[in-house]
This record gives sequence, C-alpha cells and structure tokens, in this order.
Amino acid sequence: MRNIKLTIAYDGTDFHGWQMQPGQSTIQGHLVEIARKITQENLTVYGAGRTDAGVHARGQVAHFRTGSHLTPREFRRAFNALLPPTIRVLDADEVGPTFHARHQALSKTYSYRFYRGGVVPPFIHRYVLHYPGPLDESAMAEAAQLFEGEHDFTFFSAPTGNDEDDEPTPIRTVLSSELRREGGADSHGPGESCEVRYVVQGRSFLRYMVRKIAGTLLEVGRGKMRPAEIPALFEIRDRSRSAVTLPACGLTLEGIEYHEPWKNLS
Amino acid sequence: MRNIKLTIAYDGTDFHGWQMQPGQSTIQGHLVEIARKITQENLTVYGAGRTDAGVHARGQVAHFRTGSHLTPREFRRAFNALLPPTIRVLDADEVGPTFHARHQALSKTYSYRFYRGGVVPPFIHRYVLHYPGPLDESAMAEAAQLFEGEHDFTFFSAPTGNDEDDEPTPIRTVLSSELRREGGADSHGPGESCEVRYVVQGRSFLRYMVRKIAGTLLEVGRGKMRPAEIPALFEIRDRSRSAVTLPACGLTLEGIEYHEPWKNLS
Repeated sequence: MRNIKLTIAYDGTDFHGWQMQPGQSTIQGHLVEIARKITQENLTVYGAGRTDAGVHARGQVAHFRTGSHLTPREFRRAFNALLPPTIRVLDADEVGPTFHARHQALSKTYSYRFYRGGVVPPFIHRYVLHYPGPLDESAMAEAAQLFEGEHDFTFFSAPTGNDEDDEPTPIRTVLSSELRREGGADSHGPGESCEVRYVVQGRSFLRYMVRKIAGTLLEVGRGKMRPAEIPALFEIRDRSRSAVTLPACGLTLEGIEYHEPWKNLS
Repeated sequence: MRNIKLTIAYDGTDFHGWQMQPGQSTIQGHLVEIARKITQENLTVYGAGRTDAGVHARGQVAHFRTGSHLTPREFRRAFNALLPPTIRVLDADEVGPTFHARHQALSKTYSYRFYRGGVVPPFIHRYVLHYPGPLDESAMAEAAQLFEGEHDFTFFSAPTGNDEDDEPTPIRTVLSSELRREGGADSHGPGESCEVRYVVQGRSFLRYMVRKIAGTLLEVGRGKMRPAEIPALFEIRDRSRSAVTLPACGLTLEGIEYHEPWKNLS
C-alpha cells in the first residue's frame, strides 16, 4: 500500500466542518467520496485537525492509504477536478508508510482575524470577525503572551463535546501566542488596513480553545478584563464555566508542523 | 435637495451586474431599493460605471439626490445594515449639487487578475482567471503598453449591446495600461504567489473592452500573437469581428477618478 499526504485549503463557510457526518456536507466527506471514486477502493482520509463548522484552512494536512498507481500530481489534479472550488488540494506527496497526519503532527498553527475598520470589504467578510469598536491592542498583545506554555485550559474548552485529539487531559502546551497587526496584505478599498490577527501555535488544542482564547483577548481589548487576570483563569477547572467563544468565521487552520523524516522513507 | 456620493465595493459573483433590471438581483437594484426605504423618497442611484454580471468593484462611485436629513455617516450605516455582506458602502459623503458620478468622472481604473499557480486558493477563486499554462509575461507587458493613447477600439468591443457610457464613437483614450506582477499580497497557502494583474486606466470604456484587451494579452502571453500585431487591430472596424472576451470573474472596477471641486461646494 502507498501512503499519500494531502495539503488542503478550504473556505469553511458552507461546510459542516471537517469530520464526516451522514447527510452533511463536510470537508472529510467530500475528500473520502472523491478518493473512493478515484481509486475504486473503500478507503478513508485522515485529517490532522478536526475543524468545526465554518472554520477555514490554509494548510490542513490529511493522508490516505491506497493501492492506486496514480502519481501524487495525478491525485492532486483528480481531486481538484472533482472538488468544489472552495476546497483545494494544494499539494499531494507520497510519504513513508508510517506517516499519520494527526498522530505525527508536532504542532498546529491557527489564526483568528479581527477586522477593526468601519466596513468589512466584501472580499474578506467570510474570513474575519468584525469589531469596529475601540480596542486596546497593546493590552491584547500582552494578554496573548500569557497563554504560552503548559496550562490547564479547562476554562478555554467546550463544556461538552469531543476534543480535537481525544486526549483525556485539559493540559495543553502552547508554543507561541501572539497578536499581529496586519499590513495592507488583505485590505481592500480606500484607506482600509485595519486587521489584527491572533496567531497561536500549539501541540494540540481542546475543542473551541482558540475561539475562547480569542474571545478572552477581545474582552481584554475592550477593557472588560486586565491581562493580569489571565493566569487565574487556568485555575478554573469547573467545566460548567468557560470563556466566550467567538464565531467560527474568524478562525483559520494555518498549517500543521511535522518532523519530515518520512520524506526519506518514500 | 442634498447630493450624496457613495463609494461602493462588491463581490459581483452572485449579481446580474450593476444596472437595475426587473426581477434580477443587481447592485443598483439593491442600492435603489434600500435608498428608497431609508429616505421614503422615490429616488434613483446613479453609478459611474455599469459593470456587467459577475464583475467586481473595489471603488465604484454612485450618487443620489435626497431631501433626507440623515448624515453621510448615518447613510453609510443604514445602507450597510440592509445590504447583503457582498455589497458594502465604504464611504458616504455630501457633495455639491452639480456632482454626477458618471458625467464628472475623469477616468476609471479596472484590473484583470490572472492566477498562474497550479491551484487557485479557495479564498480568491471568485476574483481571478486561472491560467496555469506557460505565459510570456514580458511579451504581455510589452503588448499592454501599446493600448495606451487614443485608438479605435471597435475590435475590443461587444459586437452588439450598449456601451457603458452611451457615446456613439468607438474611439477611446487609455491613460495607462500595464501588466503588474503581484507580490504575496493575495497569495494564500504554501508557496503560492502567482498572480499577474493587468491594470488599465481610461477616460471611458466600451462594453467588454477590458475583458477583450485582457483576452488579447493572454493570446500574446501564450505565443498566439506578437505584440507587434496589436497596432493593426485598431484598424479593424468591422463589428462582426472582435477579440476574445475573458470571463467576468477576473475583472474588478478598482476606482473612479474625479477632480474634486465639489468638495468646496457642499
């Protein structure tokens, strides 16, 4: 059996998230259906991160095992010919037999985009949270750094529901956590360059964790909470209490980081 | 009566163009309907450029005359509260009584975006033409410059149908015409920075003119035509022949340029 790694981007707006569910249009569902059509095998596609409904990805990673003789380039073309234009296979690579998109991920990077201008340009409205009110960005940046390190993220997790990685503990390690002011890169229209992006890299995340950290940063930006109050939130281990969850639209899975030893195995 | 100038951006994908048509969802149709709702007056909204179905705008300009006492800021908010998120009023200004969005436009700037990478990122697929094959960009750039100046653009106009500005002559003046290689600004995903943009500024344009110039540049890029053959095309005055028209999705009305004396009149 060969092992094929896919790097995938999607606009999550019109999908019910990554994970296959009967009767729902999901990213994994589309990929599995098409991979089965291409290979005529009853295979499954495993993703690195189970993004929720409405969440986007620029660099989701997945893999599947197949007996097909198609080249990675042919796989990429076949997927893109059959997928909707809002899901794209950016790259396909043949990898060693031990590669597993989720188990071998060293870390994942997510971003949460805040649009601060008065009017959200129509070209990016699906990808940002609009917050036109005053925000103390330096307090937000200070608070963002306090999430780095190993903490109990119970307060920053969904009160119920599965976690992304099935780990039983709410302890997670955040490798970097920072607020970035974006230049004109995604700005459109006269005088608009108003984006603030929260970027967080971690070994793994609890469900809603990034959206709840972003919600807490927004509270800090609005002056409803001080950065100094963040550390105490890691002490709250009562699952009936949790931080505000921001809408899915602002969240993007930017990428998955791996050691790349499998490159030598293929 | 007061005169209100609007600067408007839209994702044209889901609209039947600018101009109001019975039973169709158009940009002007939405603006007129909402302006009438806000003012309770039977007014009309006049646009500077009649963009076709599927064409986008970052800086369309329009105006309407009203007896309403709303401030420009209140107008902007009311429009944006009632418009779909794919149409946004970026700015509203009160201007002098003589301002007319179309009659007083000095020039308009359009862009046509080519995406050259193997895979179009899902975040921009509505706004570009995908052309993954080889392209001689320097030949395209050389050809682009040959459109500058006053020419007979019969070969670069729709064989039938109304022109944007109702002028009876096919002579038009192009102020600037150039090919630009875009940096990473709109690139998404690993290793993608593959955009070429044709940007053209002119006093006014015939219907399909930019899409036909872009089509001709693509022919040059593909080696089907040499830049030296461009000047002869201005001699073709037979309306039954015309250049290839590229799809609407790649075209964006970037902005309308004015003298701004009305600013002193309001």
